[in-house]
Amino acid sequence: MKRIGILTSGGDAPGMNAAVRAVARKALHEGLEVYGINYGFAGLVAGDIFQMDAASVSDVIGVGGTMLYSARYPEFAEEPTQLKGIEQLNKFGIDALVVIGGDGSYHGALRLTEHGYNAIGLPGTIDNDIPYTDFTIGFDTAATTALDAIDKLRDTAKSHERTFVVEVMGRGAGDIALWAGVAGGASDIIIPEHDYDVKKVADHLRSQRQRGQKHGIVVIAEGVMSAEKFAEELGQYGDFQLRATTLGHVQRGGSPTLRDRVLASQMGAYAVELLMAGKGGLAVGVLDNKLVNHPMTDLFNAKHHAELSLHQLADDLAY
Amino acid sequence: MKRIGILTSGGDAPGMNAAVRAVARKALHEGLEVYGINYGFAGLVAGDIFQMDAASVSDVIGVGGTMLYSARYPEFAEEPTQLKGIEQLNKFGIDALVVIGGDGSYHGALRLTEHGYNAIGLPGTIDNDIPYTDFTIGFDTAATTALDAIDKLRDTAKSHERTFVVEVMGRGAGDIALWAGVAGGASDIIIPEHDYDVKKVADHLRSQRQRGQKHGIVVIAEGVMSAEKFAEELGQYGDFQLRATTLGHVQRGGSPTLRDRVLASQMGAYAVELLMAGKGGLAVGVLDNKLVNHPMTDLFNAKHHAELSLHQLADDLAY
Amino acid sequence: MKRIGILTSGGDAPGMNAAVRAVARKALHEGLEVYGINYGFAGLVAGDIFQMDAASVSDVIGVGGTMLYSARYPEFAEEPTQLKGIEQLNKFGIDALVVIGGDGSYHGALRLTEHGYNAIGLPGTIDNDIPYTDFTIGFDTAATTALDAIDKLRDTAKSHERTFVVEVMGRGAGDIALWAGVAGGASDIIIPEHDYDVKKVADHLRSQRQRGQKHGIVVIAEGVMSAEKFAEELGQYGDFQLRATTLGHVQRGGSPTLRDRVLASQMGAYAVELLMAGKGGLAVGVLDNKLVNHPMTDLFNAKHHAELSLHQLADDLAY
Amino acid sequence: MKRIGILTSGGDAPGMNAAVRAVARKALHEGLEVYGINYGFAGLVAGDIFQMDAASVSDVIGVGGTMLYSARYPEFAEEPTQLKGIEQLNKFGIDALVVIGGDGSYHGALRLTEHGYNAIGLPGTIDNDIPYTDFTIGFDTAATTALDAIDKLRDTAKSHERTFVVEVMGRGAGDIALWAGVAGGASDIIIPEHDYDVKKVADHLRSQRQRGQKHGIVVIAEGVMSAEKFAEELGQYGDFQLRATTLGHVQRGGSPTLRDRVLASQMGAYAVELLMAGKGGLAVGVLDNKLVNHPMTDLFNAKHHAELSLHQLADDLAY
Repeated sequence: MKRIGILTSGGDAPGMNAAVRAVARKALHEGLEVYGINYGFAGLVAGDIFQMDAASVSDVIGVGGTMLYSARYPEFAEEPTQLKGIEQLNKFGIDALVVIGGDGSYHGALRLTEHGYNAIGLPGTIDNDIPYTDFTIGFDTAATTALDAIDKLRDTAKSHERTFVVEVMGRGAGDIALWAGVAGGASDIIIPEHDYDVKKVADHLRSQRQRGQKHGIVVIAEGVMSAEKFAEELGQYGDFQLRATTLGHVQRGGSPTLRDRVLASQMGAYAVELLMAGKGGLAVGVLDNKLVNHPMTDLFNAKHHAELSLHQLADDLAY
Repeated sequence: MKRIGILTSGGDAPGMNAAVRAVARKALHEGLEVYGINYGFAGLVAGDIFQMDAASVSDVIGVGGTMLYSARYPEFAEEPTQLKGIEQLNKFGIDALVVIGGDGSYHGALRLTEHGYNAIGLPGTIDNDIPYTDFTIGFDTAATTALDAIDKLRDTAKSHERTFVVEVMGRGAGDIALWAGVAGGASDIIIPEHDYDVKKVADHLRSQRQRGQKHGIVVIAEGVMSAEKFAEELGQYGDFQLRATTLGHVQRGGSPTLRDRVLASQMGAYAVELLMAGKGGLAVGVLDNKLVNHPMTDLFNAKHHAELSLHQLADDLAY
Repeated sequence: MKRIGILTSGGDAPGMNAAVRAVARKALHEGLEVYGINYGFAGLVAGDIFQMDAASVSDVIGVGGTMLYSARYPEFAEEPTQLKGIEQLNKFGIDALVVIGGDGSYHGALRLTEHGYNAIGLPGTIDNDIPYTDFTIGFDTAATTALDAIDKLRDTAKSHERTFVVEVMGRGAGDIALWAGVAGGASDIIIPEHDYDVKKVADHLRSQRQRGQKHGIVVIAEGVMSAEKFAEELGQYGDFQLRATTLGHVQRGGSPTLRDRVLASQMGAYAVELLMAGKGGLAVGVLDNKLVNHPMTDLFNAKHHAELSLHQLADDLAY
Repeated sequence: MKRIGILTSGGDAPGMNAAVRAVARKALHEGLEVYGINYGFAGLVAGDIFQMDAASVSDVIGVGGTMLYSARYPEFAEEPTQLKGIEQLNKFGIDALVVIGGDGSYHGALRLTEHGYNAIGLPGTIDNDIPYTDFTIGFDTAATTALDAIDKLRDTAKSHERTFVVEVMGRGAGDIALWAGVAGGASDIIIPEHDYDVKKVADHLRSQRQRGQKHGIVVIAEGVMSAEKFAEELGQYGDFQLRATTLGHVQRGGSPTLRDRVLASQMGAYAVELLMAGKGGLAVGVLDNKLVNHPMTDLFNAKHHAELSLHQLADDLAY
């Protein structure tokens, strides 16, 4: 293997640039040549490919988004399209790839591996919804952005003795809600992975008020329902001076946190090591602080598990 | 005058605590006694009043929200209710007041002045919609929060070559939109104070794309229409990969900026000086960097004017 | 056990308040009574102790420093002083304690346990220098503050093509330097746990310049030497337009990060569970994402180990 | 005039990129051609010059430092060197320039004007030490960075009941100290423009302690003396648990604030208007919220005046 390509795919996530930098720098350090592929698999097929040197990734470690751009490209599920991508790999002499994105992008990566072009997948998504990894690149930043918003909302909740229902991202996963909720001192956290009972939430808010805390934050994951709708339901069980707010797309952007940068750097370097060992079709993860890899096929039928102990913790501490 | 009261009224705004601190400390420094009144005019009527010393306002200068709480209280428009408030002033021996809030709260302040209890109003609102002042306490922080969000959205807009329509607060005023829009490098800023033409916005985005900038930010003030609705209209004139997002209540919270803290401190001290000079019924403002005061009655028929030169500036710089 | 006390000891660290809140809320939730002890062991001896309810810790989860204050108090090493502390415990009917602080404070905690008052220790220090835990409460925030500073220095380093030598805290430990260095894209990281060679650092900077990156950041842990001194040594091996800067005390303050708040919340609740199980003399830690406890005596002869793989990683990625 | 050049000179300041963007975009909008000159006057002489289009300045409005780099270049005081610069202007067909930097750079700008190449100066420096302008580009950001540090120090000051002496930048000017000091609730602010009496500072701290505020922040401008030295002097008048800290170079970097970005945008566009009106040798400023210009020669003998009313204000509010 002499020459590797890097692409980012799916929704952008903070830390993707730190991962691109790590892959590029580690590979160059090991004497490999490195090519950036713009716009994910779409750019691969279109041949939107350029050589990278060490300076190409200078000062990007702290920049949000992805310098390699990203794009949705469902067409890559078709074999003729994949073959066009492989033509481009041949044209540029690229032997192997690192694909940074959600697990949707691992399907494309696996196809390339099957065609003889080893590809390693790095979990880049704010949703933290990828199996076989405790954390994805971008999650810590998104949860931190949600937390910053909760902190701000708390100021106004307290001043007016209101309860805010805050909707955070995560698609089907409750991880952002759980972490931002615990860190934000939420009264309740509503996630897809756990039952909830609106009446109990109302009782809880009421008993908190009786204990002297007259404002509250309820965090709800977008996978359950909208903040608007939950506030409506909750309002039927008492007058909590409710306000609903949806944090929205800001959760995808921003300079990556310390943790996301370190994780992205570790995973990027590890992906290059795997490629150098002749491996492909593997998804990188971090489990109990250790870098791990699993066959991508294992991930397709597996499910990510949220840290549900945080749900209980939030409940106990919102006494 | 021996004893002054302070209250915050209307929507909370970052910097209100800095203003409360300034009023309290300046008054204590001048040998006056100071009483805090919780929950605005509602707390005045209810007698929710407590004595403050220098330590009461320690370390609050950087805290968002209002330590004196706030509440809507339309009942204070009725004279019998006002008289109950005055009873409380007498009971606590309070001679004069500082009222921090939107211009709605100035009506209550003026009534108290007419009854012989001098009241000075400080403009505390994120909307910057108060006449006879260039800036209100809380505006700079709210616009900064909006700007932070725009910066984050830019990351993801760029990565996916999208255009975001971002709805910011301001009620009927376009000031947050103008300042955050110019500072955020917005392609277009849509405000109530200025005509707009959706087709022209579309043409502008298109020409920016032709000049190589393939993503964009359009900032819209809530006083015009929702981001959702504007994105829908804009989408009829071209495929800009639009996403709509509404920043919401986070704009009301957070630690006040440098400017808001300094402005709040200056205005708070100035209000005490006016009371000591035997003045009442006056609204404090800052015009061209100078502290000013105007009779509250002047404000009721006047209109705040947004800095429209910023609209032209944004337009020129989004070339 | 009916009544527990909480104190913070040693240098303050962001997240201490989140830990205090977690201990108090969990204990109240379990039906215990809770007392706060101000000023660490000094306040214990002085009887500066007050009852806490659920509202006592409202809205402190995001506040830096410690609401229970802290103080150095070497006198607590003497048994007569310890006995005075125990008198106060008896007076207030406190059966058991949670002590949040550096491992220095664990000695005092162990003495109390030996006298029959179970005490559990939580690792609260920015330095991350406590054995048997991967992370201490406050470390993530301190490293994040250092990273923010490095990001700012990078702007000016790049504009002027300079190299900054940045001194970060950590006492004898290199953890802040390692994490902030990797996340900040440092050219080199100098820590007490790893040899260094000034000439090699100079060669490295030179080769980075040849590869097109003309500015650099060298992070040095305070345990090695001052930034000033290192810059002087480095300057003897080439003209790198060096500037030395020491981040200083700001690293101890600020609102705790997401991670520190979650960790502090988990550890605080866990400490109460240990006390309820009749345990004492144990130090709480987190190892590979799991909450653990070890006898305090085990810690006294053990050494914290920095994650040295980060040193190698930084080196590879600064290619 | 058909073609303008832009350069940044002297110490970098946050907002310089926003100014470069504004000059470039406004000029392109007006149908002019735009050239960027790297490394200030040094790059001008060396011919390090490149054409800019609208996309050249995309997404730089929020980026710290200067994309055009900066460099010290005292050689430009010599006429032969100036003539070499003019040769380059002729070679690239540049008719006029915008120079962004401290007032030192205005000398070079004036020489070019005298040779027939109109140059307009924009005040870019964190120190706010330029005459005929209330604010310079970069000042608000630097003062905000200093304020953030003060907020963090307050956490630890409060936890340990200490007094921090904080040294901020500003060269000979006290503006950063004044604004960050007022906004940070400093007990005392020591600046070059105002006498001070160490004993009085000590008395003040003591009386604050008596009034219940047991920690404090003293802000000192670097133009007076070092924090270290001041703490030493202060310590002779009482035991205030003093800690000295110097904020250092971080104050030069970081993403510019809302105010700095708006100011830089306004000034950049205004500079182009002045050039289009055939003007040269003028320094742009903002006085009482209005854009103004003055002959550069007027500035050379004038002095910037700090807003001394802030000193009195801080004093009163630190009661």
